[in-house]
Amino acid sequence: MSMNELKVGVLGATGAVGQRFVQLLHNHPWFRVSALAASERSAGKPYREAVTWRLDTPIPGFAQDLQVSRCEPGLDCDLVFSGLDSSVAGPIEAAFAAADYAVVSNSKNHRMDDDVPLLVPEVNADHCRIIDYQRKRRGYDRGFIATNPNCSTIGLTMALKPIADRFGVRKVAVTTMQALSGAGYPGVPSLEILDNVLPFINEEEDKMERETLKLLGTFQDNRIRNAQTVVSAQCNRVHVQDGHTECVSVELETKTDKEGLAEALRTYTAMPQELGLPFAPRHPVVVRDEPDRPQPRIDRDAEDGMAVTVGRIRPCPVLDMKFVVLSHNTIRGAAGTAILNAELLRTQGYLD
Amino acid sequence: MSMNELKVGVLGATGAVGQRFVQLLHNHPWFRVSALAASERSAGKPYREAVTWRLDTPIPGFAQDLQVSRCEPGLDCDLVFSGLDSSVAGPIEAAFAAADYAVVSNSKNHRMDDDVPLLVPEVNADHCRIIDYQRKRRGYDRGFIATNPNCSTIGLTMALKPIADRFGVRKVAVTTMQALSGAGYPGVPSLEILDNVLPFINEEEDKMERETLKLLGTFQDNRIRNAQTVVSAQCNRVHVQDGHTECVSVELETKTDKEGLAEALRTYTAMPQELGLPFAPRHPVVVRDEPDRPQPRIDRDAEDGMAVTVGRIRPCPVLDMKFVVLSHNTIRGAAGTAILNAELLRTQGYLD
Amino acid sequence: MSMNELKVGVLGATGAVGQRFVQLLHNHPWFRVSALAASERSAGKPYREAVTWRLDTPIPGFAQDLQVSRCEPGLDCDLVFSGLDSSVAGPIEAAFAAADYAVVSNSKNHRMDDDVPLLVPEVNADHCRIIDYQRKRRGYDRGFIATNPNCSTIGLTMALKPIADRFGVRKVAVTTMQALSGAGYPGVPSLEILDNVLPFINEEEDKMERETLKLLGTFQDNRIRNAQTVVSAQCNRVHVQDGHTECVSVELETKTDKEGLAEALRTYTAMPQELGLPFAPRHPVVVRDEPDRPQPRIDRDAEDGMAVTVGRIRPCPVLDMKFVVLSHNTIRGAAGTAILNAELLRTQGYLD
Amino acid sequence: MSMNELKVGVLGATGAVGQRFVQLLHNHPWFRVSALAASERSAGKPYREAVTWRLDTPIPGFAQDLQVSRCEPGLDCDLVFSGLDSSVAGPIEAAFAAADYAVVSNSKNHRMDDDVPLLVPEVNADHCRIIDYQRKRRGYDRGFIATNPNCSTIGLTMALKPIADRFGVRKVAVTTMQALSGAGYPGVPSLEILDNVLPFINEEEDKMERETLKLLGTFQDNRIRNAQTVVSAQCNRVHVQDGHTECVSVELETKTDKEGLAEALRTYTAMPQELGLPFAPRHPVVVRDEPDRPQPRIDRDAEDGMAVTVGRIRPCPVLDMKFVVLSHNTIRGAAGTAILNAELLRTQGYLD
Repeated sequence: MSMNELKVGVLGATGAVGQRFVQLLHNHPWFRVSALAASERSAGKPYREAVTWRLDTPIPGFAQDLQVSRCEPGLDCDLVFSGLDSSVAGPIEAAFAAADYAVVSNSKNHRMDDDVPLLVPEVNADHCRIIDYQRKRRGYDRGFIATNPNCSTIGLTMALKPIADRFGVRKVAVTTMQALSGAGYPGVPSLEILDNVLPFINEEEDKMERETLKLLGTFQDNRIRNAQTVVSAQCNRVHVQDGHTECVSVELETKTDKEGLAEALRTYTAMPQELGLPFAPRHPVVVRDEPDRPQPRIDRDAEDGMAVTVGRIRPCPVLDMKFVVLSHNTIRGAAGTAILNAELLRTQGYLD
Repeated sequence: MSMNELKVGVLGATGAVGQRFVQLLHNHPWFRVSALAASERSAGKPYREAVTWRLDTPIPGFAQDLQVSRCEPGLDCDLVFSGLDSSVAGPIEAAFAAADYAVVSNSKNHRMDDDVPLLVPEVNADHCRIIDYQRKRRGYDRGFIATNPNCSTIGLTMALKPIADRFGVRKVAVTTMQALSGAGYPGVPSLEILDNVLPFINEEEDKMERETLKLLGTFQDNRIRNAQTVVSAQCNRVHVQDGHTECVSVELETKTDKEGLAEALRTYTAMPQELGLPFAPRHPVVVRDEPDRPQPRIDRDAEDGMAVTVGRIRPCPVLDMKFVVLSHNTIRGAAGTAILNAELLRTQGYLD
Repeated sequence: MSMNELKVGVLGATGAVGQRFVQLLHNHPWFRVSALAASERSAGKPYREAVTWRLDTPIPGFAQDLQVSRCEPGLDCDLVFSGLDSSVAGPIEAAFAAADYAVVSNSKNHRMDDDVPLLVPEVNADHCRIIDYQRKRRGYDRGFIATNPNCSTIGLTMALKPIADRFGVRKVAVTTMQALSGAGYPGVPSLEILDNVLPFINEEEDKMERETLKLLGTFQDNRIRNAQTVVSAQCNRVHVQDGHTECVSVELETKTDKEGLAEALRTYTAMPQELGLPFAPRHPVVVRDEPDRPQPRIDRDAEDGMAVTVGRIRPCPVLDMKFVVLSHNTIRGAAGTAILNAELLRTQGYLD
Repeated sequence: MSMNELKVGVLGATGAVGQRFVQLLHNHPWFRVSALAASERSAGKPYREAVTWRLDTPIPGFAQDLQVSRCEPGLDCDLVFSGLDSSVAGPIEAAFAAADYAVVSNSKNHRMDDDVPLLVPEVNADHCRIIDYQRKRRGYDRGFIATNPNCSTIGLTMALKPIADRFGVRKVAVTTMQALSGAGYPGVPSLEILDNVLPFINEEEDKMERETLKLLGTFQDNRIRNAQTVVSAQCNRVHVQDGHTECVSVELETKTDKEGLAEALRTYTAMPQELGLPFAPRHPVVVRDEPDRPQPRIDRDAEDGMAVTVGRIRPCPVLDMKFVVLSHNTIRGAAGTAILNAELLRTQGYLD
């Protein structure tokens, strides 16, 4: 699929998520970054001076000398990716949407608004249609807000969706071992995590338990109805740079075995694959048969970080089946899914 | 409680568990180490030459020049602690028991034998009475074999027992994040665990799921009857030196809330506390109220490593209640519990 | 040596160094903590509420309910230990000294003042006599300021002093691998040090190169004259919690060999040992013969963290001899040396 | 430069260095892997079954089904890369050379033979001419042995060579902080390096002190004459996966300053760059101006791991100048340099 180039901006461009947007949008076939916006302190400076770049690849050439703007409507672009901190994202994103910008956000502020899609394109692409209702209700003309879930929810729901479709999922118990990059920068002090596990991440369990229901829900009569699934999450921070590992148990409506579950996961594709979206992994879920996979350092970059990897599928004595999910928390779990959301929304006509 | 000094030996004294026995038995009020036994290769050497000592405190003075013996009956002692590798422990331990030695073992070989107690003194002290049946059945006179569970099972059952007594436990789902020292030496290569999680520990999940049932079982009519609890375990290795962290969810027979569960755990004591055994922690279960505890580096040494710490008690949407358990895997989870077992067995007359 | 109890206070008591003072002063035979002072924000609260305690042992009982004061003269004590941040330490310490308090500081502000002793009792105990000149010059009556060096300098100079005394040291090249706790709290973000080395610590090389000369200098005619030694330092931060490792090469005035150097280090004692000061290690320098020692995790707690450990003594093809030094950076390298300084100063009559 | 495809083999193909050869030779423009050889145990199996692959990218397609051979002459290729363990490399490599194979080895066995080139193409490309003498002396016809240095020596000499050429280097003091991958597999146990530094690597200091002299030496009259430089090395293992960091001080014949040294390093190119060899980095030495660079995680992959990075150039009070060098120890420090050596040797006619 080929498209005319669309001008896009990044809100919060100097932050951790914003940097990942800048990195991943380099050479994007459909989107050209024409605006980078950040706080008052950075505004007016060339990006290379405003940013303390922390990614392992250099600042892309296009961004080096781009002058940083304020986070206010007036940017020369049609769509903005938001990596804003949640302390400020709410009203800024609404202002952009009201000013006819498409807002594709990684921030949590509008995720649970009942007229805002909480999207993972392989999981619930049809939910994007709630935008029609959003525009009507909020009086937006061409603008809208679309969001992606929390990083740990994305990995989980990408593994649950193929199972839910084939077998039905009644209950989910998940324990996470999450990477340090999920805490942003400066994030977790080294003295707290060296030779340690932190068994608590603020608000994370609540996000996983609530966002999952919306993602697995159905779009009907211009409403998103939550799934009836029950989710219990226990979230931990471990000494890993990138890649969230999740130990999952599920209770199914229709029983199956290891092979049945593996086949449902391995063969799953959805709209991003059918449309051939630029950021879509060929296989959204990679299934490993080795007894000791997935592992964050080995599997986080599967399909450029856009696939999740599932392994250790086996029966669970308490629920029905259990397995381990691994996903790259700052690519598939944040900026990468937002970009895929923007690609999806464009193909669905929301950027015309 | 005061006792005459009893001579004890350590089998496998140069290994990881054996070294911990030697360290912890230093200055023990009831036991004096009079024999250290190891493989053919070490036999005949002074201990300080035979061992590659890896603990943070120096080799105790008493052990420095003790000559290492072979692992054969004939040692000058009444009781042997076994830290033998499971590849050789089975027949050696049986030979010692047949030769009138009390064998208190950390090895897995005899744990599930139906005439061998699998003991954690705070959990199932009464199971020691199966030794009477064991002696009769195997024709042992003064000897016997008693075992302690796998490290991750000990932490789990110490937290489950007070709950089971007060509320009844139907189902248990547990996900572990286990320390590197649990793998012995040389154990996990650094290249495998740096910036990584290993989502698999050989046989560990099976041990947790089976041993827990025997520990929570009842002793009746000279038989140990397994508990009817259902256990599901997911075991992971993380970048921590000592201290296993376990995220647990339980389904109860009688419902309770956070305060009820905390109170049951906090106030629990059992025979080791009542008898004032030398290695008994005053509080077998320490309950922490902070939102981010327990943590391995901070909590593993609670009560000299003999207490387990429980925190984050809260309702579980899938089962009933969930919480986090932390225990020192090589002290409470191995040598320390074995020593406490020996203390218990002595008070119960099995060493007379 | 026995002494009447002296009342002491801690300035900056809620910070990283301050917490270590509180921990180490627990049960001190000569000093009783009667005042804890910190910033405006903490003043008026009981210490246990004001502090975010980060050490592995619990807050000592004496400190739990002590009410935190402001960092102003008027504290009920004769001596204050200062763990103040260098952004505020300078004038506060001077105000206390002017108000007749003995100020024993770990802060850098007054270290290089030419009338202030920069003390490590095993290295330059006689420098304390500069206090007489300080009092006269600054018009202090009973008060004074004494300081200890930077953590990495303390380990270095304790190893250099016995060598300098016996053989003379002309040149010193040192490369450090420093622990994370040296950066205080929150200090180094985990994302910066995981799978990494940071080859730079702000101002650290300059401190090592300058402070070493004052420490190895001589006290003559009421002046401290710097040593003529030339020092070159390269400082790195590595993934270690506590314990600075330093690779040192020295050029000597009188040549010697491995045995000569080892003997000079191993047998070294100084005034703290002769006086039997409570915090004095029996052997200030522990010499290890194993090829792979010292190591931070194994050797940092030698003599309760108050001894430095030297190993790998061997000839250096470029200078004369090379070796590795290890010291606990927050005990011997900070609060522990400050307490030993206070003990020394008391025996020398500066606290009468 | 374009070349006909040459068939190459890998000796020790299942080991750590062998795997890196297989990975890096994938799609090489001049070399096609036609033979993989390993121990008796692996011989006869397809490579994917014989190897326990540990690199982060998958096994290249070409290697998957290639049948593993024994390490004996008879392989279908003209050149063999040797990643053999030093316990067996010596006679095997000699046998291949005698049987007309070009042997390009990463093993230490023949490095210091006076008729074998010890090559880093940017440092001493002209030393390859010793092969003519080697062939004559050993009676080889078309075969020969060429070697590359130890990983830590490669990084060091690539930084020293531009300095030696421009200013002359009399003395070198270097302290290394080396990555875990340098120890191969399984290598360093995690329990030894977690929260620790190992101040010793067997034979490493000796290799750095001796190999450097041969590399910086001159080729004259069919002899390699060692440089007169004096080198002192202190080698440490730190908690880093890949990338050796080296703190270097040098005494120069002609004095210079920071800018002079930086310019000599930054502008340096040599024969690989002039010939445009496929594996040659455009800039063999990358110079960074930031105060806290180079860092292993950020800089090890500079120019696909084939460039070394130098930073923190500044005067040294003891010698003349000091700086920090960083190089990828398994790419530039092992297999990558061996491949570049093979490319060089081909352009110099030794593979015709």
